[in-house]
Amino acid sequence: MLYLIGIGIGNEKGLTLEGAEALKKCKIVFLEDYTNLVEKETVTGIEKIAGRKVEILGREAVEGEKKILQAAEKEKTALLVSGDPLIATTHVSLVLSARKKGIWVKIIHASSILSCAIGESGLQAYKFGKSVTLAGWSRGYEPKDAYFVIEENKKRGLHTLVFLDIKEGKCMEAKEAVELLEETERRKKKGVIASETQMVAISSLGRKEQKISFGEIEKLKKAELGKSPSILIFPAKLHFLEEEWLNYFKL
Amino acid sequence: MLYLIGIGIGNEKGLTLEGAEALKKCKIVFLEDYTNLVEKETVTGIEKIAGRKVEILGREAVEGEKKILQAAEKEKTALLVSGDPLIATTHVSLVLSARKKGIWVKIIHASSILSCAIGESGLQAYKFGKSVTLAGWSRGYEPKDAYFVIEENKKRGLHTLVFLDIKEGKCMEAKEAVELLEETERRKKKGVIASETQMVAISSLGRKEQKISFGEIEKLKKAELGKSPSILIFPAKLHFLEEEWLNYFKL
Repeated sequence: MLYLIGIGIGNEKGLTLEGAEALKKCKIVFLEDYTNLVEKETVTGIEKIAGRKVEILGREAVEGEKKILQAAEKEKTALLVSGDPLIATTHVSLVLSARKKGIWVKIIHASSILSCAIGESGLQAYKFGKSVTLAGWSRGYEPKDAYFVIEENKKRGLHTLVFLDIKEGKCMEAKEAVELLEETERRKKKGVIASETQMVAISSLGRKEQKISFGEIEKLKKAELGKSPSILIFPAKLHFLEEEWLNYFKL
Repeated sequence: MLYLIGIGIGNEKGLTLEGAEALKKCKIVFLEDYTNLVEKETVTGIEKIAGRKVEILGREAVEGEKKILQAAEKEKTALLVSGDPLIATTHVSLVLSARKKGIWVKIIHASSILSCAIGESGLQAYKFGKSVTLAGWSRGYEPKDAYFVIEENKKRGLHTLVFLDIKEGKCMEAKEAVELLEETERRKKKGVIASETQMVAISSLGRKEQKISFGEIEKLKKAELGKSPSILIFPAKLHFLEEEWLNYFKL
């Protein structure tokens, strides 16, 4: 039996009552923290709730699947995932493999960065277009998708949610993301990103250090935007209620 | 003090540990069930957790705000909301009013239909375009936005999440929604909806009766799609993993 349990945003208190109940029943508890980083104190909190040790799994173990499936074939096994467990493709793939092996899978949802970032921004959910992940650049790999997605959405009057990449346990900082977008602007010159472009930066979503900043890029670049992980939102034209909400966080 | 607490999808066990803790501290507990219907047994379950009666508020009371703000000025007050509390504009407006009155507001997130429907469909989150609510038709009011949003997203290779309207405590049925889209097709003739168009219907998301159906509209129209509330997804071109996942629910 495999329980795929979302921890939700924030700490272990983002577990649902159903998730906590299931967790207590499990003999083996895994946690993956590479699709979204999990704080040490959260792991300790989860161990208290579970009443047993939590084993942290890296990308290889989760994507390799073998360890998880072998455990789930024998015992009630939990795989804890930050946020909602089905938003990352990795876990969709794991569930498919489990089903093929005839392992019963129970998915327990939780709050997701996707809906929470939209909620905290006060922007209307149906006004978001396609979202995108901004990946870091390395020699020969300089993806510009985020820039084009923002452009396309803006043209249609839609907001864009930009997730920032996690690499080797390090989250991209909001300022690094802005620099990459500005560098793309210098090369592509489509007028998508300018110093007066308005942007929302949400840092440490769901944690006590949560910080939301809103304003022109020029101002955000000079400000303290809070601790990563961060998310950027590029809003299209604002409805007055959206503007009133965001002005609360205006720099 | 106002606690805006998400119940999450499903029943009261979708409350987070943080939400349940806050709920127990509140002297006054309201619940609104017009943005998303809440089952009677869920209300009973919440009353057990809260240790007190829950007062159900209709649209007028929540949008009028007076009753909630007056309570929150005096006592620790909870407003429970199905799903995540900040996805409906109504609650954004309530938080703004509370802040103006100097009332301290704590938002407690939970799983949202937005992220859960995407998750359960197995479709990749970043491949969704703008989402839309399909409203019921009445004399002189025959909104066709959903049809055009599906068209626009499909052109760009993006999936569309279609929420179905709730009116006077009644959710639109999946089949009624399909009929409205087909009627729009007959009038607009843009080739967006045809009998061989593929569609995902998710009914009773997060409840024990949850049912997912996938296939051509022609087949879904003849099948039992489960109990409302329902959500429709019109997928664009499928990635092989997405297809493998959906085939599990194929009619």
